[in-house]
Amino acid sequence: MNLAIVGLGAIGGSFAMSLMKKGYERIIGIDIDEQTIDYALKEQIIHEGMTSPEEGLKDADVIMLTLYPSQIAPFVEQYRSYFRQGVVLTDVTGVKTSIIKETTRVLPDHADFIFAHPMRGSEKKGIAGASADKFEGANALITPVPLNKEENILKIETMYKDAGFSTLTRVTPEKHDEQIAYVSQLMHALSVSVVNSSQASDDTLLFAGNSFQELTRIADINDSLWSELFLNNKEALLQSITSFEAELETFKQAVETDDEEALKDFLTRAREQRRNWY
Amino acid sequence: MNLAIVGLGAIGGSFAMSLMKKGYERIIGIDIDEQTIDYALKEQIIHEGMTSPEEGLKDADVIMLTLYPSQIAPFVEQYRSYFRQGVVLTDVTGVKTSIIKETTRVLPDHADFIFAHPMRGSEKKGIAGASADKFEGANALITPVPLNKEENILKIETMYKDAGFSTLTRVTPEKHDEQIAYVSQLMHALSVSVVNSSQASDDTLLFAGNSFQELTRIADINDSLWSELFLNNKEALLQSITSFEAELETFKQAVETDDEEALKDFLTRAREQRRNWY
Repeated sequence: MNLAIVGLGAIGGSFAMSLMKKGYERIIGIDIDEQTIDYALKEQIIHEGMTSPEEGLKDADVIMLTLYPSQIAPFVEQYRSYFRQGVVLTDVTGVKTSIIKETTRVLPDHADFIFAHPMRGSEKKGIAGASADKFEGANALITPVPLNKEENILKIETMYKDAGFSTLTRVTPEKHDEQIAYVSQLMHALSVSVVNSSQASDDTLLFAGNSFQELTRIADINDSLWSELFLNNKEALLQSITSFEAELETFKQAVETDDEEALKDFLTRAREQRRNWY
Repeated sequence: MNLAIVGLGAIGGSFAMSLMKKGYERIIGIDIDEQTIDYALKEQIIHEGMTSPEEGLKDADVIMLTLYPSQIAPFVEQYRSYFRQGVVLTDVTGVKTSIIKETTRVLPDHADFIFAHPMRGSEKKGIAGASADKFEGANALITPVPLNKEENILKIETMYKDAGFSTLTRVTPEKHDEQIAYVSQLMHALSVSVVNSSQASDDTLLFAGNSFQELTRIADINDSLWSELFLNNKEALLQSITSFEAELETFKQAVETDDEEALKDFLTRAREQRRNWY
């Protein structure tokens, strides 16, 4: 199987490294940055490397696009004439419905696109943040669409297992986006809003403990990527903020009215749900 | 120096253990739970133990109250006739202005109360959660009031250093409460509201990564203690929520209006502030 990985950042590079370790025989790395390709070849992260995709795509049985959300459909449109008959494409973007809609519109009939979301972020950007064991024990979500062939979904799932993922879950794109809005995007929205509060000051850390450090960790955010992720999941994200705001309002009301019993009930409910999860 | 610690939970117990290790010669443990006293004596965490405070208080040069916020002033009122001339009291509660007001009203003239806040929470409750190195490298806040004698403030600060604290900062009670509302209470309010969201379900963890796990950790909360902490800091807490909501509203507006530039600016501002702190 010939695998082409387009975009050798922390995620694409980690797929290359872990699948190389697993014994994949032909991994073609494609990246617009020549230094990245040189580095990947030198470190034996890939078998072949190139800065223009045409030649690599022609040979590929599977094409993994580790690009920004806004780049997926334009890439498919620009390079579809180089896709082999029966090629399987896959992506790694954190939002699905909008990407699927845009990409399906430009996807040729002889290609099958399995949309997926590896659930392991990276604090380090670029190929230097890649590692062969990055995905060990990680979860991934696969969001099949009606046009997908079962054998192609299985092919991508096998590749994820080979890369180290432990749990693969198939969900609809809608459920994916709704839940990601809650468990991931809302967390980032809260974190950046906390850090941007007018109460933030140079003295803040004199008062801060673990909870502040943990909650604000993800405010150290990639603004270009996350702007795209937020805007491509607008409806679900706004709904998620609204649901959250309703709870914060309940909390505030209890504090404002000195309703200790309501406050305790609210906290007890949270504690029980948290313990139910972890 | 005779030190009486009232309440041998995780915090009181850790003070006893770390000061015992430091060589303090007389640590009297007072707790209403007989098993706790038996355990503390057996484990040599204290020199003497009792379930009624009268005798221990009579001998004490320093009395540390590791009680819930609502118990501080009533304790002082009930037992003040047992306080020695020149005794120094101190507390460990996470809110200050309201506690200081209530307590000062009932404090006898021959006692000095140095209000303090050790900045290290405990996940484990009770004496079993205590350890001799719990406070190593931790921060503490001291909130002096005009009636305090400098020598008594220094006495408490020395005791904190002996217990392992590395940074002691003196702040006004008002600034303390305002900043704690932001860096600690707001974090807890957000965390419990996230967990109580109507979007929470048994499926949630299929989608959740590190950020959800971290942000919801503190939702496993002691409802009795935190209800008191929130209600005793009502004004500052509500102000802190309002400041946060203003930022979340800015974020929402940018998403709603597809204003990618405003969104990027907001994220960039957060990233820079976060990196400035850590």
